[in-house]
Formats: sequence, structure tokens, C-alpha cells
Amino acid sequence: MDIKDINIPILSKNIKEGETNKNIFESKGLLTINLISSPGSGKTTLLENIAPILNEQGFPCLVIEGDIATTRDAERINKKEIKCVQINTHGICHLESKMIRKAFEQLDMVNEKILFIENVGNLVCPAEFYLGEHEKIAILSVTEGEDKPEKYPLLFKESSCVLLTKVDLLPFLDLTEDIFISEIRKLNKKAPIFLMSKKDKSSYMEFIEWLIQKHLSIFGGER
Amino acid sequence: MDIKDINIPILSKNIKEGETNKNIFESKGLLTINLISSPGSGKTTLLENIAPILNEQGFPCLVIEGDIATTRDAERINKKEIKCVQINTHGICHLESKMIRKAFEQLDMVNEKILFIENVGNLVCPAEFYLGEHEKIAILSVTEGEDKPEKYPLLFKESSCVLLTKVDLLPFLDLTEDIFISEIRKLNKKAPIFLMSKKDKSSYMEFIEWLIQKHLSIFGGER
Repeated sequence: MDIKDINIPILSKNIKEGETNKNIFESKGLLTINLISSPGSGKTTLLENIAPILNEQGFPCLVIEGDIATTRDAERINKKEIKCVQINTHGICHLESKMIRKAFEQLDMVNEKILFIENVGNLVCPAEFYLGEHEKIAILSVTEGEDKPEKYPLLFKESSCVLLTKVDLLPFLDLTEDIFISEIRKLNKKAPIFLMSKKDKSSYMEFIEWLIQKHLSIFGGER
Repeated sequence: MDIKDINIPILSKNIKEGETNKNIFESKGLLTINLISSPGSGKTTLLENIAPILNEQGFPCLVIEGDIATTRDAERINKKEIKCVQINTHGICHLESKMIRKAFEQLDMVNEKILFIENVGNLVCPAEFYLGEHEKIAILSVTEGEDKPEKYPLLFKESSCVLLTKVDLLPFLDLTEDIFISEIRKLNKKAPIFLMSKKDKSSYMEFIEWLIQKHLSIFGGER
């Protein structure tokens, strides 16, 4: 398994760079979130919906978008008047710490409190690359099927929170939310699991509260 | 971009191994198909549905399943009485030619005519690794969104056929089949695009006919 062996120095170098990133983020009071999922599970839709609410609640956001190609996601985020920079990896299947630092330097930070990193849509490789984030979050859309956590175990084991998206489509699949929850629990007993749908904006509120509490627990202060 | 550079010898070695695979497949009269998609776009569901029909039509199948972990997909295929072997990559994000040869040696081939390789669910890395297949096929489920071809261009550019799955869910998304087709056509003018849904078994028939015609064009013979 050649690729694994070759990756070891890359991974350890990346961890060191990630620690540098984390020091920068903490010195600036930025809670940093690494969002990982399959393509099309709803990462950008999530950010379009929650960033304006976090802003209203006194927790303005920055976004780094990661994609193989195109600036489509950054354009969507910019339309919401959220500061955003796009990384195009040109074929590389994940983000690395060095890419994040370069992208972060392009963001004109003022008083933002949360940095979201939307990783390349891929359930495998991004899970192996620490970027200096405080929280790694897995997103799973119900249309992908309940077997995905067990088939892509690293991400679901390591995530501090799991978002189950597109739950409005459950009635049209032969699936219930219970089966997803029990499959996630096989790998991760503790992480909160938040159910959400873009058709019901109130479904984002519990996750938003979780993010705010994470910020307060690291950086102190009050709402 | 270290990883790219390091991968060059791996990729060229893999291509040579792939050519060896292709010679073996052709000597045995096996049309070989490499199925690539995101996690949960419906690769296994497709095989569960089409392999029994291909068998009835005189084109029995073999399946190699690729996953990071679990034998869930191979179990589903075996229930349909189709010969199948599971590769578990243990963290590697794609299949390589050497893995395919080892797996193929475990299949007790008699008179099968089509070998399906279900790659690891991942729109990025599997597109870079030739396995000795005759046809590379991209599968995109409508729930992933119409922006995916442009965001993951290599696969959609190189595929000789694109399957658009879960089209029964289009009425519940704010999307039409036309937008998917025009996005795919930005990258690939020629590949046939087949629309399908597990809720309408007849939707598989055009793709099945395409496979049979591919077999006849390479290996000759009549239906």
C-alpha cells in the first residue's frame, strides 16, 4: 500500500502546520470549524442559512471554501454578504493546513468570531488532514443512505458533532431518522446529532446554539 | 503541491498494471466497467437491479466491490445470486489496478460476460486511477445538486456514459432534469446520459441495452 507509506511525512508536516494555524485562530478569538461531507450533502446550503443568523446573534463568520474547481460556492456565500475566500485545489482531494493559512491571509478579518472551512466534498481524504480546527463536523444527507458512517468510519468516529441534513426527504425514501442515529452511534457514542432541513429554518437553531456555546467555552464572554 | 508530484510514479505504475488487467479481461471476453460516484449515489442499487436482467438476457455478470470498510455492499450483491468479491481498502480512497487483479483471481468465473467494478464512493481520486476497464461511468444522483460535474470535472470529462439516478426525487427538489443535462454537457458533449430511478424498473433498460451493444462491439457475436 504505497500511498499510505508515502503519506506519513506529509501528514506529520501537515499536523505541525495545523498547530500554527490553531495558534493564529486562537490569538484572534476565532472558533474554527472543519466541515466534511460527501459532495452535495448540503455544506454550502448550511452556511448560507446559519451565517446570517450567527451574525445577528453577535457571532459574525468568515468562510474558506475548498473545491477542486470553480468558485460557485464562494459566490453563493458572498451573496449573503459573508466574507469568503475560495481555494481551488486543481485535483487534490482534500484541504491541507498550508492552503488554509494562505487563504486566511486573504480574508479581511475585523471582528469575526467563527471561521468555517468547507472542505472538498469527499468522505475519505479530508478526514485525515487536520487543519488547525477546534471542531471537525461530519455532515450526512439522508439521501446518501444509512450505511455511510460504517463505510467511512474515520470521519464519523472523530467528529465532535454530526449534522443529518435533508430530513424533509425522509418520507420519500424507505428510511427513518432512527436508523441513521443508530448507525452513527455504532461509531460515535457522544457526538450530538442535529437533524436539519433547508425547508424548516428553525431546524438550524440547535446547532447554532451549540456553536455559540463552543465559542463561549473556549474564549469566554457572554451572549 | 507535494502529493501530486509524489503520485506520478504511482499513477504510471498503475497504468501498466491496468493494461495487464485489460489483457486478462479481453482474453476472457469480459466487458469491464468502472463505476465511479459520490457515496450514496446508487451504485449498488444499480447493480442489484441490472445484473439479474443482464443475466436473463444472456450477459451474466461479475462484481468487484470497493469500500474503505465493511462488506455491506458485497452482501447485497450476493443476495441477488451474483458472484461478487469485496475489497476493503482500509483508508485508501480509491481502487488500484493491482487490487483489482487480486480480487479478480478470487472470482470463480465460468461464462460471465460483464465485470462491474464498484469503486470507493468518491468523486475525486478514483477518476485518476485506470483499472484496465473498457468504460468509465459516472453516476450522479439528483439529490447531490446540478453543480457537481463542474466542481468535479475530471470524472465527468472522461466518462463514456453518465447515469443520473434518483430522478423520482426531482419533484421534491427545486431542480429539473434539464439543468443536470446542460451542466453535464458543459464538460462532455458526447457521452450518453441515462436517467433512472429504482422506483421505475423500466428506467434501467436503455442503459442495459447500451452495455450489451458495447459487449457485442468489442467481442462480436449476436444477442
